[in-house]
Amino acid sequence: MTSLLYSLDFLGVAVFAASGALVASRKEMDLIGFALMANLTGIGGGTLRDLLLGRPVFWIETPYYVGVCSVMAVAVFFTAHIIHKRFTVVLWADAIGISAYSVMGAEVALRSGANELVAVVMGVMTATFGGLARDVVADETPLILRKEVYATCTLASAATYVGLRLFEVPGIWAMAAGFIIGFGLRAGGITFGLTLPTYKAHPGKHYE
Amino acid sequence: MTSLLYSLDFLGVAVFAASGALVASRKEMDLIGFALMANLTGIGGGTLRDLLLGRPVFWIETPYYVGVCSVMAVAVFFTAHIIHKRFTVVLWADAIGISAYSVMGAEVALRSGANELVAVVMGVMTATFGGLARDVVADETPLILRKEVYATCTLASAATYVGLRLFEVPGIWAMAAGFIIGFGLRAGGITFGLTLPTYKAHPGKHYE
Amino acid sequence: MTSLLYSLDFLGVAVFAASGALVASRKEMDLIGFALMANLTGIGGGTLRDLLLGRPVFWIETPYYVGVCSVMAVAVFFTAHIIHKRFTVVLWADAIGISAYSVMGAEVALRSGANELVAVVMGVMTATFGGLARDVVADETPLILRKEVYATCTLASAATYVGLRLFEVPGIWAMAAGFIIGFGLRAGGITFGLTLPTYKAHPGKHYE
Repeated sequence: MTSLLYSLDFLGVAVFAASGALVASRKEMDLIGFALMANLTGIGGGTLRDLLLGRPVFWIETPYYVGVCSVMAVAVFFTAHIIHKRFTVVLWADAIGISAYSVMGAEVALRSGANELVAVVMGVMTATFGGLARDVVADETPLILRKEVYATCTLASAATYVGLRLFEVPGIWAMAAGFIIGFGLRAGGITFGLTLPTYKAHPGKHYE
Repeated sequence: MTSLLYSLDFLGVAVFAASGALVASRKEMDLIGFALMANLTGIGGGTLRDLLLGRPVFWIETPYYVGVCSVMAVAVFFTAHIIHKRFTVVLWADAIGISAYSVMGAEVALRSGANELVAVVMGVMTATFGGLARDVVADETPLILRKEVYATCTLASAATYVGLRLFEVPGIWAMAAGFIIGFGLRAGGITFGLTLPTYKAHPGKHYE
Repeated sequence: MTSLLYSLDFLGVAVFAASGALVASRKEMDLIGFALMANLTGIGGGTLRDLLLGRPVFWIETPYYVGVCSVMAVAVFFTAHIIHKRFTVVLWADAIGISAYSVMGAEVALRSGANELVAVVMGVMTATFGGLARDVVADETPLILRKEVYATCTLASAATYVGLRLFEVPGIWAMAAGFIIGFGLRAGGITFGLTLPTYKAHPGKHYE
């Protein structure tokens, strides 16, 4: 389980970092701007998680993560021009990132002794914060404000993981299931525009 | 005093959560988006306060608050269409929220041993942060940027509370006074457009 | 070294506070709004640094800093109309602020036992966060998104300082060098539009 945990963690950080660097390319930043956006997006969610749980911040303990984000930034800086549809890559990288981070966030919270509800909330916050920070700083519309399922996927991921652990499903299966369900749902959102029923303003009722 | 403290706390969290959910309705989000906005707004300010003071984050200790915000989200999702002027309700819910949170934030800071100036600042930050996060994430103009008194009300609330405690007024009266003064001022702002004198750019002096 | 440290710290906080108050003038806020923007900008970066390093937040320990920011807010409120080019003053105050904060952030991190890479990252984050918060809250384009060197300057400042300390250069010289290099670079950015090569979208490759 520990090795899967590390793989998920690495995967989440790396793909989020890539999404941050791609948004930096959209803003035509320089290499240092790429590095900043990659780090903000890659380690942002986990940083919030650790602060909230009162744990030492993970990348201060293990600076290696900063290295991973910075390498991704350099790699994207020199290769982004090859990519035909950069925003599509952002969407998919972000989808992998939120699914990995939802499960990771919930697991770290459980391990810190948080109760199940808190663990699910921590999964959702961990997963959404990095991408949100990326989009707010870069002055882009946050993915979370788009119509297709987004927060729902992180909730499904985290709740699946926490639920299965409650039933004593081994960690590795619970993680895999959490990741796949969140990612599958988000893939449906990106590909088919899958949505939950949204609130619809009624004719004649204005927001004023 | 403890029971009034809990009531104010509950009130602040619940009405802020409602304001977050109403902004979610403005963005036509789905139910999960409502829950996320309600939680962000309801527990955001108190989370910042606890992080700054080095205390355990309140909703991790007492997950019940997450439940309150989520229930508000569901309630608003199914009833918002009944409300004629949703933005007006946001304004008033936010007004109650900032007044309750200003007093609460200052009280928690005092109890943690902070000095009086810090307690007032903590009241202001606690009160303004949730609504600010709500508006930034939802890409709305933050209420704090509007012309009528806003930050001023939170300062008045927190300073009244801390000042009265300094003169050993019993906690319950100091709280009531702090809440009423902040809310009354903000009510004047919403109803009559009450403002403090603002900085006016002079003709011929540009911001460049 | 300690007295230079305090001077840099004071300088960083005060000029950042002034930049925050000037942005408040751009938004035609009232006096309390000025105070809020001055404090957010002045103490924002150091607050993030302390939270990440698990240290007590500096202005809670030493409320004096809140006083400095508030005094700057009042001073700017009553004198901003004299200034011909307020945005230019924001740019230069911000330039001093980021250079001072980069060095300070790195130094505080080193002193807390962080490794060198983390110390550099902490310098960059400490320096950029206050101004970023100022611009996001005030709904202005973050300076960090503009074309001229910005994050690069904070990186140069922090890396110079940490690098020189690694070679056992006395703290006072390392600080001076770090500050001057960061500020000089940023001055080049403001005056001559100095840039690093930025990512350029290729014709026919769209961000979609």
